[in-house]
Amino acid sequence: MTADNAAGVHERLAGYRDRFNGVFANYFDSVAEQGPPRNSFVPEALELVRDMSLRGGKRLRVALLYEAARLVAPDAVPGLDEAALSIELLQTHGLIHDDIIDDSPVRRGAPSVYYAYRERFPDRPQTALGLAVLAGDLAAFLSVQVLLTAPVPRELRQAMAAVQATAGADTVRGQFLDLERDFGPVPDREVLDTVSEYKSARYSVLAPLQLGLLAAGADPAAHENELARYARLLGVSGQMRDDYLDLFADAGTVGKPAGSDLREGRRSYAVCALLAATSGAERAVVESALAGPGCPPQTVERIQDIARRHGVDNELLAEIRRCAQEAAAVAANWRGRWRDEAVEFFEQLPLWGVLRAQ
Amino acid sequence: MTADNAAGVHERLAGYRDRFNGVFANYFDSVAEQGPPRNSFVPEALELVRDMSLRGGKRLRVALLYEAARLVAPDAVPGLDEAALSIELLQTHGLIHDDIIDDSPVRRGAPSVYYAYRERFPDRPQTALGLAVLAGDLAAFLSVQVLLTAPVPRELRQAMAAVQATAGADTVRGQFLDLERDFGPVPDREVLDTVSEYKSARYSVLAPLQLGLLAAGADPAAHENELARYARLLGVSGQMRDDYLDLFADAGTVGKPAGSDLREGRRSYAVCALLAATSGAERAVVESALAGPGCPPQTVERIQDIARRHGVDNELLAEIRRCAQEAAAVAANWRGRWRDEAVEFFEQLPLWGVLRAQ
Repeated sequence: MTADNAAGVHERLAGYRDRFNGVFANYFDSVAEQGPPRNSFVPEALELVRDMSLRGGKRLRVALLYEAARLVAPDAVPGLDEAALSIELLQTHGLIHDDIIDDSPVRRGAPSVYYAYRERFPDRPQTALGLAVLAGDLAAFLSVQVLLTAPVPRELRQAMAAVQATAGADTVRGQFLDLERDFGPVPDREVLDTVSEYKSARYSVLAPLQLGLLAAGADPAAHENELARYARLLGVSGQMRDDYLDLFADAGTVGKPAGSDLREGRRSYAVCALLAATSGAERAVVESALAGPGCPPQTVERIQDIARRHGVDNELLAEIRRCAQEAAAVAANWRGRWRDEAVEFFEQLPLWGVLRAQ
Repeated sequence: MTADNAAGVHERLAGYRDRFNGVFANYFDSVAEQGPPRNSFVPEALELVRDMSLRGGKRLRVALLYEAARLVAPDAVPGLDEAALSIELLQTHGLIHDDIIDDSPVRRGAPSVYYAYRERFPDRPQTALGLAVLAGDLAAFLSVQVLLTAPVPRELRQAMAAVQATAGADTVRGQFLDLERDFGPVPDREVLDTVSEYKSARYSVLAPLQLGLLAAGADPAAHENELARYARLLGVSGQMRDDYLDLFADAGTVGKPAGSDLREGRRSYAVCALLAATSGAERAVVESALAGPGCPPQTVERIQDIARRHGVDNELLAEIRRCAQEAAAVAANWRGRWRDEAVEFFEQLPLWGVLRAQ
């Protein structure tokens, strides 16, 4: 990509983000007006869902969606804004329930919805839990409803809503896999990749691609296998990068101390690679860190040394690059069929992730 | 209704129930086959969702749906089975999350999904909570997905899914209202009716009516106000009946000791009527029962006496009957426009509820 092209892409991304944040704010105003009358819990829940949604940073999913439409149509097409709302509401739904599942106090730099309710009802934790479950449920139903009432032909509403209902169900399946991953035998690579695909790639990459193509009048079903393959490779490479950073990055880079996966007994790509590479006393150190309730920074440092000595860091980086390049190669095949400037976005996107990891 | 007609209706209801239970069992088989491969948490969740769904008793929502289609079409029409699945999956979603919100160990005579997971993971309550949240989420997405993939024209899939996504969002709003009802000033009748409408009437009565009409080729939007009015009246009369029974019925009738609303501080129709009818020392007895963590059977009996002395029981019964008769009158207006034998079902249904309360 030339410097000019890169600047163009960044401008487009910033444009999507600004446009979408306005769309999102208007949407929440219209939902709040729908009632029911004379209550404060529903407006309060919508406010929390709205705040959490609007705190979303880069809006990469939204960019994927708009760029997917540009594969086919040079200008904005109807239905894209509603698809973007649906994508981000589904994401918000997942985050709200995730923070209940993980008992997380903070999300996107502010209290999670669950903890916002716990602060609001300090003496009634059960009420706070219930309200947080409901806030997540509301976001889930709204994420489908916004597509089913979009100002586009009914067939398109149906097709887009089917994408999101499937993405929603698959993401929940991925969450189950993610919880199961930390039980029983150490998962192999295929299992880890399936977790990445279901838990994040399907709703974060595949669904935005499908929705963008649908809105622009193309039929994503005709290209299902390659779209799914692109999404899976991008999802695996992204998850692997997160897991790499969790173990190896210094706190300055990721904003939190290294080793949270180790401390929480999570069998990330990095942790599994570490288990596969070690034996005897070294493996025992890793296993006891995973089993215990948190381990001190010195242990994390010791495990980082062990990992580096066995080349786990370079092995992960190589694999991240390989998956990213493979994803880029899938997208490169779209040249000729789809519009070059948008294809270029999908070719470059996986490689940006590689840069971020190193 | 003549005895012959009544026997006919009961036969039809039993027929719907049997047919639907088979449809439901097949549906879960097909969902289980969808994967993902190599895991046990997803099949286990589907099994729990399935068990809980199949334990549903009378399937009154399903009967409402099939009878709504019979308002227009004498024979079964495509899409009804998927609509029935959607209705019952949405119900299952709500029950699973309800049992988290209320911390309820039992549902439909067996462990709630939440407590089934707690038994499965006795040392990991947080994992059990997470799995139960996810099981409810899965049922929610499936309830919309099953309509979006139904073997009917895409416009009909869209219209039916829009009904259910709206019903889902409205029911969540109703759950918020229901929680808020027990805070702040004692709610008036209008607030209680709005809770009944959002929390149960919209998904239990209005949505099945809309779905049945849609599948049969009618346009429910053309009759929106009267359908909504019928649903609200039926929902109010049903909720009032439940609340009446909770305070006044003996344990033999409802299968649990009277006064659970009092003990749990829930401002039911009966509790609100009691608060409105009493003052001074009597009201203080009621208020202290509501405020405390459970009250003994003697206090419940004393409050029952107070309520009867003030005519709260008869007042509630009269109001249950009035709402039921009003609902029946709404349905009576459908004669001429829609098929008589199905209209008769909707006329009679509210009155059966009245009989059950007395």
